[in-house]
Amino acid sequence: MKARVTVMPKNGVLDPQGKAIEHALSTLGFAAVGEVRTGKIIELELSETDPDKARAQAEDMARKLLANTVIESFRVELA
Amino acid sequence: MKARVTVMPKNGVLDPQGKAIEHALSTLGFAAVGEVRTGKIIELELSETDPDKARAQAEDMARKLLANTVIESFRVELA
Repeated sequence: MKARVTVMPKNGVLDPQGKAIEHALSTLGFAAVGEVRTGKIIELELSETDPDKARAQAEDMARKLLANTVIESFRVELA
Repeated sequence: MKARVTVMPKNGVLDPQGKAIEHALSTLGFAAVGEVRTGKIIELELSETDPDKARAQAEDMARKLLANTVIESFRVELA
């Protein structure tokens, strides 16, 4: 079973990479761009076949390793 | 209008960050994890309100700046 963990900076947390992209896009002539936020996506191949257990496992991984929950929020999707 | 660009390494392209996560997860005791792939997610705030135009704009940005299309593929979702 595949799980996709999306990690984004929480609202109010500075995102320098996003700011850099914002600036680079306006330099390239894309004027109509407002705020840019960047995050990470982690696709996991899990051997667990039960959706509820797989989701719980992926959330556990996100809390322990993939996301820094002080400054980042995460979301788990199964596919 | 919000656009979300997801950038992932193409199949066959090495993903050292994914490998590192794989290893770290097994060290943490998550044995049931197969392949791990990591990617980027870029959320853009566009002033364009027409969905087709907004999508075209975001794809243009992805091709020109956000993704390296030699080794990465991207997907645009509107929200």
